[in-house]
Amino acid sequence: MDISHRKVKKQILFKDAQGKALANKEVHIKQVKHSFLFGCGAFDFIPFVMKGEPEFKQLTDSWLEIFNYGTLPFYWGQFEHEEGKPNTEVLKKTAEFLKSKNVTVKGHPLCWHTACADWLMKYDNKTIMQKQLERIDREVKGFKGLIDMWDVINEVVIMPIFDKYDNAITRVCKEKGRVKLIKEVFDEAHACNPNAVLLLNDFNTSINYEILIDGCLNAGVPISAIGIQSHQHQGYWGREKLEEVLARFEHFGLPIHFTENTLISGEIMPAHIVDLNDWQVEEWPSTPEGEERQAKQIEEMYRILFSHPLVQAITTWDFRDGAWLKAPSGFIRKDNSLKPSYKMLKKLVKEEWWTDITVKTDSQGSACLEAFKGEYCLSADGKEVAANLTDNEAISVTLK
Amino acid sequence: MDISHRKVKKQILFKDAQGKALANKEVHIKQVKHSFLFGCGAFDFIPFVMKGEPEFKQLTDSWLEIFNYGTLPFYWGQFEHEEGKPNTEVLKKTAEFLKSKNVTVKGHPLCWHTACADWLMKYDNKTIMQKQLERIDREVKGFKGLIDMWDVINEVVIMPIFDKYDNAITRVCKEKGRVKLIKEVFDEAHACNPNAVLLLNDFNTSINYEILIDGCLNAGVPISAIGIQSHQHQGYWGREKLEEVLARFEHFGLPIHFTENTLISGEIMPAHIVDLNDWQVEEWPSTPEGEERQAKQIEEMYRILFSHPLVQAITTWDFRDGAWLKAPSGFIRKDNSLKPSYKMLKKLVKEEWWTDITVKTDSQGSACLEAFKGEYCLSADGKEVAANLTDNEAISVTLK
Repeated sequence: MDISHRKVKKQILFKDAQGKALANKEVHIKQVKHSFLFGCGAFDFIPFVMKGEPEFKQLTDSWLEIFNYGTLPFYWGQFEHEEGKPNTEVLKKTAEFLKSKNVTVKGHPLCWHTACADWLMKYDNKTIMQKQLERIDREVKGFKGLIDMWDVINEVVIMPIFDKYDNAITRVCKEKGRVKLIKEVFDEAHACNPNAVLLLNDFNTSINYEILIDGCLNAGVPISAIGIQSHQHQGYWGREKLEEVLARFEHFGLPIHFTENTLISGEIMPAHIVDLNDWQVEEWPSTPEGEERQAKQIEEMYRILFSHPLVQAITTWDFRDGAWLKAPSGFIRKDNSLKPSYKMLKKLVKEEWWTDITVKTDSQGSACLEAFKGEYCLSADGKEVAANLTDNEAISVTLK
Repeated sequence: MDISHRKVKKQILFKDAQGKALANKEVHIKQVKHSFLFGCGAFDFIPFVMKGEPEFKQLTDSWLEIFNYGTLPFYWGQFEHEEGKPNTEVLKKTAEFLKSKNVTVKGHPLCWHTACADWLMKYDNKTIMQKQLERIDREVKGFKGLIDMWDVINEVVIMPIFDKYDNAITRVCKEKGRVKLIKEVFDEAHACNPNAVLLLNDFNTSINYEILIDGCLNAGVPISAIGIQSHQHQGYWGREKLEEVLARFEHFGLPIHFTENTLISGEIMPAHIVDLNDWQVEEWPSTPEGEERQAKQIEEMYRILFSHPLVQAITTWDFRDGAWLKAPSGFIRKDNSLKPSYKMLKKLVKEEWWTDITVKTDSQGSACLEAFKGEYCLSADGKEVAANLTDNEAISVTLK
């Protein structure tokens, strides 16, 4: 698989603080961060940051060894359980901690029918919508600089026909229609932070979602990237389906984010379950064979997605087993021990697709190098400089 | 089922040519045409009008006894089999004949991947699109006044993924995307005849079509009515599905046309057939039990649709058995004899839902009447006047 689009081929002229070319010098080209977003759910950073629990320290340390991108929860019903009392401080502290670790943070989601605030239901639809837009204002403006990437609206394909329980957002979507609601929430988010990356996100990867995106784009909705969920509790999609899905969503020309990926290391959920949330079990053990299988599937899936030029992000949903649905869906076990999938992904992200090389400059102080796109520290003789290597333009840098 | 929305309750003041009120007079209220569009495929009018064949005279006479609305074929591949030689005259003469019989005519379709002109495929996509728009110009302007109702584009849900054979329109749709193509052809048709009724038409009644319509409306596509095909070769939908489909498409608030209805009076096509055109048989006989069943289904279906306030038209596709797919899908048999479904529909349209009454005016020359919406001839003592009774506003008329 061709992954040349993930790399730069770059000529760099190295100079010292006096402007003199560093001729015939060994320079250390050390990658600091990927441009590609290797992500994972970062919900567990909240108890760590807020309480510093040692259990979570081990977990977050392992997390930070692989990932440069984390998703934080903004489910309205939890974030603002009581009207007017949003959980802003906790999320802000956690986002600040992640930022201090050079992790890009996404907020998930700003609008969704599930996990919505119950108190909204006492209002009429017009008021609900007004509060929805105010909520977007508060979060998108309030977290600007800390969080500049949002799942603006989640699972709209089923939103107006969701009938498991009454909720404020289904009501509004039913009245407005899908595209109008999407347009209003996106327009609001875009106005609040014009540079933010704004995602539409869905688990429905059928033609429904294609047509929905097509309609949104023609209606002028400022979608930055297409979010695709891939919770595979019922079995790995496999190469064929994965490539088929990519082929159907690539024609929009927009970046594609795999926003919620799950591959499990235990028994597969029966195929007849339609809503994954209906599968409630006491225990869902991880097995040795399952863990080997999971690692292989993680490898194949990440390789396919990394080789696709439009894919910019893959987020695995659970970092640790036993989170959502108690599934063995993590990279680490419940006791925080590392699973084969962890080691496999770390090998890909931090070895095979990672650049840590020494190059020798020529007599003019220049060197040509090939490197995975990302942030770098370039150093020689104890002097260094930070550089963002993302294209093939020649540059000159000064080591200090 | 409530059908009060199909009727007017109207006070009419009757006067003579001298302006004198016609007091205490018996007035004949005779319906001439329904406002509701009771339609049928009118393809068989072409050989009748062009060649006057007696076989078709019997057929068209039976047709005209029930229907006020006919669909004429504008399949590009047939209408303009050779580039630059459109079959305009034949269609014009047929439309003129139908108009002379007070029949509303719809052209079907202006853009479709099936039955498309093969010669288009030698052009690049930009040229194909240009020719598509020119074609719309030619037909919509050329038939203005004769045909002011068009299925603008047909079956877009599958259009870009249609893979049975290469064709010019699938190519263009794949490149532009569904909503953009729809918008361009609708905008063109609307510009050519701003008063035309313009339909989007599809056999796909799933959520795909809902989302497509939603996207189109938000993108400003001037859709006048939603066209729903209901070819039931594989069995009658039944009340439940029919009401479910209506419930899902009514929320747009647009008029709904059942554009292509089929209920058969023979053996049912097996359920595993996906594209109806794949079912090719030597013979498909109509049976006595099948004919009774068809008549019952026609009755139930038309009653349900007539009672729905947004439904404005029902078109049964084949008038005579043995047309499309050789199916026993008509109101008359191959020998032109009338089937039970014909008699059933005629009873509904021309008796139960038809107004032909005598009212007596009061001492002021006024009468209150209840009548099915439509065109009327009001007469007394050999004097008459035409009137269009479509609302409950009181009017005065002059009999001459």
